[in-house]
Amino acid sequence: MPQNRPPVTLLTDFDDFYVSAMRGAVSSVTDAPVHDIFHRVPPQDVRAGAFILRNVAPYYPDGTVHCVVVDPGVGTERRSLVVEAGDQFLVGPDNGVLVPVARELAGKDEPRYYDAPYDEPESHTFHGRDVFAPQAGRVAEEGIGAIAGERVEPVTLNIDAPNFDATDDGYVAHADVVYIDRFGNSVTNLSGEDVLRVTEYGATLEVDGHTLPFERTYASVAEGEPLALIGSHGNLELAAREARGADALDLSAGDEVVVSVEVSKDTKEN
Amino acid sequence: MPQNRPPVTLLTDFDDFYVSAMRGAVSSVTDAPVHDIFHRVPPQDVRAGAFILRNVAPYYPDGTVHCVVVDPGVGTERRSLVVEAGDQFLVGPDNGVLVPVARELAGKDEPRYYDAPYDEPESHTFHGRDVFAPQAGRVAEEGIGAIAGERVEPVTLNIDAPNFDATDDGYVAHADVVYIDRFGNSVTNLSGEDVLRVTEYGATLEVDGHTLPFERTYASVAEGEPLALIGSHGNLELAAREARGADALDLSAGDEVVVSVEVSKDTKEN
Amino acid sequence: MPQNRPPVTLLTDFDDFYVSAMRGAVSSVTDAPVHDIFHRVPPQDVRAGAFILRNVAPYYPDGTVHCVVVDPGVGTERRSLVVEAGDQFLVGPDNGVLVPVARELAGKDEPRYYDAPYDEPESHTFHGRDVFAPQAGRVAEEGIGAIAGERVEPVTLNIDAPNFDATDDGYVAHADVVYIDRFGNSVTNLSGEDVLRVTEYGATLEVDGHTLPFERTYASVAEGEPLALIGSHGNLELAAREARGADALDLSAGDEVVVSVEVSKDTKEN
Repeated sequence: MPQNRPPVTLLTDFDDFYVSAMRGAVSSVTDAPVHDIFHRVPPQDVRAGAFILRNVAPYYPDGTVHCVVVDPGVGTERRSLVVEAGDQFLVGPDNGVLVPVARELAGKDEPRYYDAPYDEPESHTFHGRDVFAPQAGRVAEEGIGAIAGERVEPVTLNIDAPNFDATDDGYVAHADVVYIDRFGNSVTNLSGEDVLRVTEYGATLEVDGHTLPFERTYASVAEGEPLALIGSHGNLELAAREARGADALDLSAGDEVVVSVEVSKDTKEN
Repeated sequence: MPQNRPPVTLLTDFDDFYVSAMRGAVSSVTDAPVHDIFHRVPPQDVRAGAFILRNVAPYYPDGTVHCVVVDPGVGTERRSLVVEAGDQFLVGPDNGVLVPVARELAGKDEPRYYDAPYDEPESHTFHGRDVFAPQAGRVAEEGIGAIAGERVEPVTLNIDAPNFDATDDGYVAHADVVYIDRFGNSVTNLSGEDVLRVTEYGATLEVDGHTLPFERTYASVAEGEPLALIGSHGNLELAAREARGADALDLSAGDEVVVSVEVSKDTKEN
Repeated sequence: MPQNRPPVTLLTDFDDFYVSAMRGAVSSVTDAPVHDIFHRVPPQDVRAGAFILRNVAPYYPDGTVHCVVVDPGVGTERRSLVVEAGDQFLVGPDNGVLVPVARELAGKDEPRYYDAPYDEPESHTFHGRDVFAPQAGRVAEEGIGAIAGERVEPVTLNIDAPNFDATDDGYVAHADVVYIDRFGNSVTNLSGEDVLRVTEYGATLEVDGHTLPFERTYASVAEGEPLALIGSHGNLELAAREARGADALDLSAGDEVVVSVEVSKDTKEN
């Protein structure tokens, strides 16, 4: 099953016809197929963009070039970066949005970040079309050398919550809601692995005063009931079966949530 | 005009970035182009998903592989199916969603349904990415034999209204609204052919107490006026010219509607 | 970087699953990749459709075939057109929607418009699927000769505002809002070049009683503040930094706006 033409993907917060000019700009320099990752990233939400790409990029084939435009700094002096991470490539602004996915794809290796110099384009407001899309197309067609300048240190970004802290009767973590999906599932930045280190399926979690069953699947609770589970993205998710967990728990994107786990031997003290 | 690379298509109720992980998973096993059918199927509405795919699949070329994920049973024991229907292929959960399109594509033949066994994947909540998309990609790349197990009987699903019944002064049918589109057109599950068997263009229909002209095109009535017509999907549609028929007629998806036709010789009794 | 397979693109006001039948119809006649331009053109807004395609088509490679379906006249006698413009091709209804992009692509040459005759299809309401998509696919696969009939004069459409008029103390132009994007930016039909002929960056514009700074980028004003700038589309845009300019200025699509520029020597008269 040879992959002769890995795709160029696009991830933006444009959610409008502007994206199609990027598709055209890519297809003007390469026959590689153009895939949409997502274009409804909340406007200028660099952390949500970083979270989304880190989640989906690992499912793409070697050689894929991901072009990311969540770019509050458009029109300023911020750099364009091209990154080699694992066997995939990333192109986008130097604002941290590429860092979490680069680390994920590189695994035990270090991702390599390069400056990708460009001439100030015709538009001061649409570097997606005039800078990043053509750069991504050239990487797909000619390789990273076509646009990579000197190796640089990127603006960094950490999107993950710190681990749980031990308390008198269990553990507590301070997490954020990084994304609320169309089902109203509230995705936190707390790694599911971290949660499983301090508790197990079938236990309950305290989340901002709500007591939630921690289950494997939505189907484990009655219709409309809230629950906590590890979503397909690998993070703790606060949801409700066939209902909007964000509404049931009164959560918005960006909210901090305090997640507590009691350790069973201490529950009598409650 | 040889079709060397018929597409793999995706139809889901995800309407979020999750879909892009499925695009990646497909393109990790095949160079076939990935097409979106639609991702805004009302959540877990198996019947709407079945209706949509039956409508659009006939316009796809031989060899197309349609991957459908409208799957309220995710995380339970329900099977994955792969189906050979006419010269196209279908992959998805065994909940009936593939049955109407399979019958449509197979025509006079019987569609062939096979179990498509899978190992329980890393995520209990995202079989679209971890089970169905890779399976669809393999069918495109290697043929149905790559994933087909034993031949099985599927969970069945009928999405069509029963035919009209004769009444004292005409005909009556009990139909459902299967889908309301973005224009507010209310698509029923009543076949346009059935309607044309009992009446003709230019006549009027009684629909839930509203008297609607039955016309060939929207342009046959004044702006804002409601009408009944046979939509491009071949079913009876309750619409309004340049307005939302669903609002004008107070209809929601899933509503039952009673459609009556008077036979002209009896109209004097009215 | 040879472009062996320039894409077939789709631009419609369907915003629903219907579009996928067009993707299937195209891929049934050609292996050319299918790209989406945009499907959320405001319903039947021929001018917005024309504006959008004129903006993005120049970024597509030679040989691209753009298929446009914004078609209030579906079901009537209006023609289908195929157009040769520059090195790209256009297919769609003869209602003016293809004219601005054709002129843009043709540059100093004249675009060539041909009748593209068709047999009345199975559906009276979905020429996108039954007429235009198959025609576009055939142009991609066989060339324009496959569907072009006699050369014709198209229904014409001008989407641009007239130039500024001189007044006692400066210049005034009467423009329209042709599109409001998802960020609430109000795109006018006033060419940025025209604005730069009568004023310069850093000046202020009077727009419907609001005094707006005319700047190069959003970042030039404080968060929430309105401004005027030349958008990536090349037209004057009324916006606000990280806020909805359309709301701040109370603008809707289709609104006329009066844009005035004072010439500095006269400002004392104010």
